Amino acid sequence: MKNVFLKRQEKIFKHLSASGIFAAVLKDFEGSRNSSVRYLTGHPQDAALFIFAKGAALLVPWDINLAKKNAYCTEIIPYTDFNRNFPNAVVSIFSGNAPPSFLQYMKTDFSNKKIEFSGSSSWLEIESFKKLMPDKEILCREDGIDSILSKNRIIKDKKEIAIYKKAAEITNTIIDELEKYIKKSLKKSKKQITEFEIALFIEKLIRKNRAEGTGFETIVAGHTRSWAIHPYPSFSSAPVAKTGTTIIDFGIKYKGYTTDVTITFTGRNLSGKQKEIINLVSNAASRAEKLLKPGISAQSVADSIKAFFDQHGYSMPHSLGHGIGLDAHEKPIIKVSSENEPLAHFEEGMVFTIEPGLYDPLHGGVRLENNYLITKNGCKKLTNARIISLEN
Amino acid sequence: MKNVFLKRQEKIFKHLSASGIFAAVLKDFEGSRNSSVRYLTGHPQDAALFIFAKGAALLVPWDINLAKKNAYCTEIIPYTDFNRNFPNAVVSIFSGNAPPSFLQYMKTDFSNKKIEFSGSSSWLEIESFKKLMPDKEILCREDGIDSILSKNRIIKDKKEIAIYKKAAEITNTIIDELEKYIKKSLKKSKKQITEFEIALFIEKLIRKNRAEGTGFETIVAGHTRSWAIHPYPSFSSAPVAKTGTTIIDFGIKYKGYTTDVTITFTGRNLSGKQKEIINLVSNAASRAEKLLKPGISAQSVADSIKAFFDQHGYSMPHSLGHGIGLDAHEKPIIKVSSENEPLAHFEEGMVFTIEPGLYDPLHGGVRLENNYLITKNGCKKLTNARIISLEN
Repeated sequence: MKNVFLKRQEKIFKHLSASGIFAAVLKDFEGSRNSSVRYLTGHPQDAALFIFAKGAALLVPWDINLAKKNAYCTEIIPYTDFNRNFPNAVVSIFSGNAPPSFLQYMKTDFSNKKIEFSGSSSWLEIESFKKLMPDKEILCREDGIDSILSKNRIIKDKKEIAIYKKAAEITNTIIDELEKYIKKSLKKSKKQITEFEIALFIEKLIRKNRAEGTGFETIVAGHTRSWAIHPYPSFSSAPVAKTGTTIIDFGIKYKGYTTDVTITFTGRNLSGKQKEIINLVSNAASRAEKLLKPGISAQSVADSIKAFFDQHGYSMPHSLGHGIGLDAHEKPIIKVSSENEPLAHFEEGMVFTIEPGLYDPLHGGVRLENNYLITKNGCKKLTNARIISLEN
Repeated sequence: MKNVFLKRQEKIFKHLSASGIFAAVLKDFEGSRNSSVRYLTGHPQDAALFIFAKGAALLVPWDINLAKKNAYCTEIIPYTDFNRNFPNAVVSIFSGNAPPSFLQYMKTDFSNKKIEFSGSSSWLEIESFKKLMPDKEILCREDGIDSILSKNRIIKDKKEIAIYKKAAEITNTIIDELEKYIKKSLKKSKKQITEFEIALFIEKLIRKNRAEGTGFETIVAGHTRSWAIHPYPSFSSAPVAKTGTTIIDFGIKYKGYTTDVTITFTGRNLSGKQKEIINLVSNAASRAEKLLKPGISAQSVADSIKAFFDQHGYSMPHSLGHGIGLDAHEKPIIKVSSENEPLAHFEEGMVFTIEPGLYDPLHGGVRLENNYLITKNGCKKLTNARIISLEN
């Protein structure tokens, strides 16, 4: 069986070759993350990747020891060789400063070539490369290497789907344990349970289940804070109680891939408004679920949920959902249609969230988020997040 | 007393006014973080900030409820009003689409102006703004708004120094507790202690001490993993033992500001190489400490430590240190001098790390990191991280 990373690299080699591009450069450093470096090589973080149409992947990792243990690529040059300076590395490598074995493999002159940089490159960086490498044609495009990578990453391959099934299984175990833990804690509670204790409980279960960690910072927002979409800090020492609504939004990272689910716990003596919001969100989730299948546009699903909320006089302050993968937020973005953006149609192999939510500054918020996989003829609900009543 | 956020904004108003710039735009969203938005307004995250030379700060937050509770600014417009699309918000606001009260306050036409964007803006974004707002002059400069902000932020004001003293106090408590906890756990240990348990112990103490959270993902690298600068994952279920070296690198976030310290625990029966690395790192830290005072260049300190390691045949794969603040890595960067970069001199009010480290793939790594404040005539060591022997 061919190495999965080589398979992924080959698609990029082909794209570059077909476009007459000599090489593409991706960087994944602090302040400028790009998980496609991991997607293409397996190296987890902090590296620049030079992909040559000729069929070579050259990794420049900050941590050479880590790269030697993880990276699948043609050649590794330590970032330290370039004084840990990205422009230095780029200019040096495209001047042909690479190990002799690599140059021999490349068997080509490096001058007068087209070099493509990620579309997320900064304006200053691109302008400076134009000056530093006047013999090269510098490309930075909306529909270039990033869109190819995003198109490839949006459809999960067999290996990724297997990872997601296991990740969802762990996530579902945690959801069940969480329900038991919170119900039990609030039953005996003369002592109060805090947002922080819940976040730690999730963290412990993640590690116990041998996942890598949280997919993003866990959000636990008790009844005093659940009005916020992303409360700050994401969990506090505030108590969680049997009143109002409590939002818990977490993901586990398993072999690099993150899940992303949200549970809402609802308390006693709810106001009419609270009951209404709970029903609307729950309803919206079921409605959206029924629409998910190949060929349907993501926007049409978001539009339909928007219309449903509109009908009841509510509006949702965030997208209906988003793809997940090596990043917590990937394509497709499941948001209402707008004039400028083309439709995104669901395809077999897409993995994403659906997460209707409504928030009121006085009555608190409700969000329900699950993860779905588009299958050949429909959709598989991977996770089992739910709205859980604490009334009894 | 004048509000500290207004004071900070006023420096930017003056800069813009003096440069003939109508407004500057900063954005702090996922994938493109800019903590200067928090520095200038107090709003913790997820917003765009429009700062007008005329003396107005317009915030466009994703979470309007959160902004209303936190932000200090002239006007707030919800991001949702622009379909949560940054270019939409920019083009719309600079076409004069703002609340009437704000326009009345501004009393000016918005056309034919100079607009500055952060130097970290993407090439595609800047080029697109040029097309979308042909009547405006679009600026994106290395030495523009970012360098002014960085120059202001590099010197901590009274409020920030008070925050740092408290943050360091909490950090030192955690270091002491950590020493007790690990020594005690390894004493009785028939049961092993894991990296994960140590990371959770730190997390608990942070919350117990009413800090906001970790400043960055805690690193716990036991003897089998301490060879990596930033091991991945940052902590695992691997055991920590009384052998080799264990690196613990953590920071606490207090009122937005992060500390950043590293402790190394050293075990029994160390190899000659391990002992040598421990001595060199400990020595390097003392040497560097003695050099810190106003007027000295950061590079000269890094150069001196490099020379010291060179002498013994070692090289350090990262910078000697870095500023800390709202970000875990800020200016000044304390790295060896290079031709292209101007010298950075220490000044009263700078807060930063010094963190010599050496790593060997076979023998493991050692790092010692503390936080320092440059005072009028010298330097105050804020934190009390150390190399701790587990031999007894």
